[in-house]
Amino acid sequence: MSSSNKIRIAVLGASGYTGSELLRILSRHPHAALVALTAEKNAGQPVSAVLPHLAFEKLPDLIKIDAVDWKTIDLAFCCLPHGTTQEVIAAIPKNVKVIDLSADFRLSNIDDYAAWYGHAHRAVDLQKEAVYGLTEVNRAKVKTARIVANPGCYPTGAQLPLIPLLKAKLISADDIVVDSKSGVTGAGRELKLGNLYAEAAEGIHAYGVAAHRHAPEIEQGLTEAMGKGVKVSFTPHLVPMNRGILSTMYVKLAAGKIANDLRAELKKTYANEPFVKVVEEGVSPATRHVRGTNACWIGVFDDRIEGRAIVISAIDNLVKGASGQAVQNMNVMYGWPETTGLEALALFP
Amino acid sequence: MSSSNKIRIAVLGASGYTGSELLRILSRHPHAALVALTAEKNAGQPVSAVLPHLAFEKLPDLIKIDAVDWKTIDLAFCCLPHGTTQEVIAAIPKNVKVIDLSADFRLSNIDDYAAWYGHAHRAVDLQKEAVYGLTEVNRAKVKTARIVANPGCYPTGAQLPLIPLLKAKLISADDIVVDSKSGVTGAGRELKLGNLYAEAAEGIHAYGVAAHRHAPEIEQGLTEAMGKGVKVSFTPHLVPMNRGILSTMYVKLAAGKIANDLRAELKKTYANEPFVKVVEEGVSPATRHVRGTNACWIGVFDDRIEGRAIVISAIDNLVKGASGQAVQNMNVMYGWPETTGLEALALFP
Amino acid sequence: MSSSNKIRIAVLGASGYTGSELLRILSRHPHAALVALTAEKNAGQPVSAVLPHLAFEKLPDLIKIDAVDWKTIDLAFCCLPHGTTQEVIAAIPKNVKVIDLSADFRLSNIDDYAAWYGHAHRAVDLQKEAVYGLTEVNRAKVKTARIVANPGCYPTGAQLPLIPLLKAKLISADDIVVDSKSGVTGAGRELKLGNLYAEAAEGIHAYGVAAHRHAPEIEQGLTEAMGKGVKVSFTPHLVPMNRGILSTMYVKLAAGKIANDLRAELKKTYANEPFVKVVEEGVSPATRHVRGTNACWIGVFDDRIEGRAIVISAIDNLVKGASGQAVQNMNVMYGWPETTGLEALALFP
Amino acid sequence: MSSSNKIRIAVLGASGYTGSELLRILSRHPHAALVALTAEKNAGQPVSAVLPHLAFEKLPDLIKIDAVDWKTIDLAFCCLPHGTTQEVIAAIPKNVKVIDLSADFRLSNIDDYAAWYGHAHRAVDLQKEAVYGLTEVNRAKVKTARIVANPGCYPTGAQLPLIPLLKAKLISADDIVVDSKSGVTGAGRELKLGNLYAEAAEGIHAYGVAAHRHAPEIEQGLTEAMGKGVKVSFTPHLVPMNRGILSTMYVKLAAGKIANDLRAELKKTYANEPFVKVVEEGVSPATRHVRGTNACWIGVFDDRIEGRAIVISAIDNLVKGASGQAVQNMNVMYGWPETTGLEALALFP
Repeated sequence: MSSSNKIRIAVLGASGYTGSELLRILSRHPHAALVALTAEKNAGQPVSAVLPHLAFEKLPDLIKIDAVDWKTIDLAFCCLPHGTTQEVIAAIPKNVKVIDLSADFRLSNIDDYAAWYGHAHRAVDLQKEAVYGLTEVNRAKVKTARIVANPGCYPTGAQLPLIPLLKAKLISADDIVVDSKSGVTGAGRELKLGNLYAEAAEGIHAYGVAAHRHAPEIEQGLTEAMGKGVKVSFTPHLVPMNRGILSTMYVKLAAGKIANDLRAELKKTYANEPFVKVVEEGVSPATRHVRGTNACWIGVFDDRIEGRAIVISAIDNLVKGASGQAVQNMNVMYGWPETTGLEALALFP
Repeated sequence: MSSSNKIRIAVLGASGYTGSELLRILSRHPHAALVALTAEKNAGQPVSAVLPHLAFEKLPDLIKIDAVDWKTIDLAFCCLPHGTTQEVIAAIPKNVKVIDLSADFRLSNIDDYAAWYGHAHRAVDLQKEAVYGLTEVNRAKVKTARIVANPGCYPTGAQLPLIPLLKAKLISADDIVVDSKSGVTGAGRELKLGNLYAEAAEGIHAYGVAAHRHAPEIEQGLTEAMGKGVKVSFTPHLVPMNRGILSTMYVKLAAGKIANDLRAELKKTYANEPFVKVVEEGVSPATRHVRGTNACWIGVFDDRIEGRAIVISAIDNLVKGASGQAVQNMNVMYGWPETTGLEALALFP
Repeated sequence: MSSSNKIRIAVLGASGYTGSELLRILSRHPHAALVALTAEKNAGQPVSAVLPHLAFEKLPDLIKIDAVDWKTIDLAFCCLPHGTTQEVIAAIPKNVKVIDLSADFRLSNIDDYAAWYGHAHRAVDLQKEAVYGLTEVNRAKVKTARIVANPGCYPTGAQLPLIPLLKAKLISADDIVVDSKSGVTGAGRELKLGNLYAEAAEGIHAYGVAAHRHAPEIEQGLTEAMGKGVKVSFTPHLVPMNRGILSTMYVKLAAGKIANDLRAELKKTYANEPFVKVVEEGVSPATRHVRGTNACWIGVFDDRIEGRAIVISAIDNLVKGASGQAVQNMNVMYGWPETTGLEALALFP
Repeated sequence: MSSSNKIRIAVLGASGYTGSELLRILSRHPHAALVALTAEKNAGQPVSAVLPHLAFEKLPDLIKIDAVDWKTIDLAFCCLPHGTTQEVIAAIPKNVKVIDLSADFRLSNIDDYAAWYGHAHRAVDLQKEAVYGLTEVNRAKVKTARIVANPGCYPTGAQLPLIPLLKAKLISADDIVVDSKSGVTGAGRELKLGNLYAEAAEGIHAYGVAAHRHAPEIEQGLTEAMGKGVKVSFTPHLVPMNRGILSTMYVKLAAGKIANDLRAELKKTYANEPFVKVVEEGVSPATRHVRGTNACWIGVFDDRIEGRAIVISAIDNLVKGASGQAVQNMNVMYGWPETTGLEALALFP
């Protein structure tokens, strides 16, 4: 830790949306010093060249990863594209802690990784070391981790409600449907046709149907909770909004259970959690309730079909679904109050 | 029919979005003469007072329903709020045909109606006479109907794919999940908080969870197709876009069947239909593909869970989900080619 | 003309938004046969590969420009990037008519062209032959033209109101301010950061301030109308919407004139024009009034400062600002009613 | 001040967007205790009934203004509709400070007030006492004020750049054009047709042309700066976005001056201001740069017409244009650092 009592942070891949969101949060975090910011293509330029809204912040210029002086870094956030991260992290000195926002270390089974990502894992030892950073579920392990695999956005919104319900045997592990709707920043800042305004505005569609890489990540968490293999029907959709993921989950209830039982269990589980909020009966979580915050709101409804319930969660994909949870994990790793730097209320409208 | 070889049309409730959409389509329909347009609160004013984009069309001024001279009318489109329509239609001379865009005559079981709409049906005889106007399914009855109950927007998008699949016993009647996402015009032009721009933009939420009145309408059609009671999990969502409904439907396959079988059946069923389009394997229907058109696009995907499939439909809620299908029904009733007035391609972007 | 009594059309650059919009309009035009569609990068693929909403139209597959059999073409629409068009058009047989939607032939002064586009014009002879296709102003020349330079979107919205006012000496040629606001399709379908949804949604900004290439095009038309050099302050802005350009123009009135005089002149000028609509006193033109149509709406207001007025025009940038006006010009060139294929009413909402 | 070392605050009219924004900011302000929140129609309900995103904040229930116990209040923020505020404030005990976000006390000339608001001012004495709270300009007076008239959103964006330029005689007081573009929250949370999603999305239009009540407020500030009467051409536009105002201002330069001179003057004036940021040459301020912040960004461009410049400002209408500036004024009144509670960076995207 630097003399100023702040940890010294590198953000690798600072020019995308999760990188930008980290800068937004960490610039106001009392224990964070932003020491190195990397962006391969824009190295040598000021941050404002790629993130003009930060023009008046005092931030170091963008550099290449190769130029990071690791002796000056305590913690690195990795916001690099999936697949490229393994080798980068492998090259980071072992005394530097790492919170990785890519998918590279999320799947503990390297065969699953190979199957879904199309190549053998390139840092198997690190994979074993990495802790899956769904904070509310894995807090104890995160506390002592060197490498945290920060969860995907969809898996965060799906697992937070489903894990406690499966653990408590309140719902069946069969026939779980997760229908998710995401804002466009979920696709990153890549120059792809589908990310253009005119392709995404004024319409909605499903993508990656029965083929999205977040499915095995969701299933990994649910399987661990259930103690046996769980498979879900998962369909993501692209919604014309900047931020937010709403997941509508259709579940079968254990015999004799109703929505109230699920809500009670969730309330109990998350009673002392600052970020997970279980709403009252009849309230439908909306992404605009959590915009810009690290919160996850969860609601439960009885379906009209007996024995079924509908569980709905809302998060901001860039905060609880990415950079906010990453900072929450940092707070856990360093023993600071978990809400540090994450206190802001939702920006509504 | 008038001497000009056009039918003489009244639009009751011309100032809302379905009324406006009827004016858009009928103003260019070669066999339609717009003779009477009603709007109780704005009676006496030109159409442009409520629909300024029509300022340069030659249209009759708005009048009250009481002022309609029914002797001059061949066909009335009713775009009145649910619940008020029954008595209005009961008072229309029996030689005038009626296409009703409200929900008042959609449920053939008047007990269901009473249960969902909170009061006994006030025009039971007319209800018996009314034909449910899902054109592709009920064309023969529509042809000779005097009163057509034009389907709801969600029921149109859900029934068009599910009815043939249930009829052909390719999918189970159990555990059908219909997760629907609608543009904001689906809520009408009412001055409600939830319809305000700042309440609907930049966010998504579910509403009417397990309680939406379109559920029994969907179930009525599926039950008829199946020959036994079908109940669905149906959840509508509000999406920040003007138009469009995307319905993502999770179904269980009959033994040994796969998505290809469903697609083949749908292609066969709709082979000669001008508006229902079954997309190729791998294509995900998007609402922007059908914006401004009377089309319904349907796609089918195998789920990763064996024995399950995902069926996706896209419509424009104001066209195929309301006014376009109403005009399609008019075309059927008068024996004109069904595409008359409905030929326009999607407005993309 | 082909035996089927339709002209045979090539669309060069069919995969962008102006190309797409031409396909939308021409597919329903009674005298148009789409014979060749080019897209260099996607040659060999069906149109649906780049424009999925057209999947169910019968259209020829995409080819390279080199593969066009010019003997089968009567008319080519060019939707190619600025700068590349000159050589392409130079290579087209002289019996083929050309409507060019790029900027390449709009500036009659080739020095102006060189100054604004950074290189000498490469087809000076053709430039001399080209007619500037602001239909309402140049109809007579368009009628007999072989090459029509279709106007830019901003210049269309600015010139239609300003030209008659300058011609009639109702406003001063000095101190004209044109503040324009465009939807995102105005920037084309290029993969640029600024075109991404998350960069364009939920915000507005000016771009190309005092440096946009449409300024000299606007000034060319106004100068011709005035008979002497006119320079304007022109600032374009990017608005989070798909389509539409609103131009708010601040002008100084000739001595003793008021807004009513301007409105009267515009009404007189455009009395028989099907597409240019002068709204009544107090009505503020909105882009949603003209969405999907070839209309230009114009309103005039007295400013609170004596001797000044505010003129506002609204167009759909892809229709009257591009492909619609191109079809209007085609109609003029072939002697068909000008509204052919362009009859649709605005898609509202 | 309460024993807890926080001032005790009442927010009158807490259920609208400016009220909501005050709650967002003040809930995290270290010196603010929210003691009384009023909403006449929703009195008796929790805040979450009207602002569901605040469901998990500990806030007092909504009450009627009559029910406020003024003995417990140090400072009241008034977010009431224009016209109703005067009598409400007149009835507040004189020891309570007031920051009024309505227009009721902004115009110092009560004849101007009467002319623009249609009735004689009902609290003339208070009007004399009120200080116009454009903080950067009137800080000294705000410091000792009891009643602060918080500036309008458009006037804030227009005056911050124009006042220093007029004071320094760098621009002419004649022919100033202010073309402003606002997000939809600028119209408040009222149930009006024009505020509906489907009426405001996917389009842009001008409103209140040459008749908006913010014009005299802008002119009051400029006149004071200039020392003589200044009149501006001011046109507001409604843009499909939640937040933000961009003002594009066309000015005539004093002899021999260029944009660089203006920029230098603005930089000098605002060198030590935490919220007013003058961007470098070539940078175009965007509303998304300031979303959710109290910042005002200002850019200056030379026009192509000699002797003219274009000045652009961007603010968040709900923050610097309303509730943020109100809190800034509170900070000034109580001697706290001006940025207290207003430190957050822009939420981008």
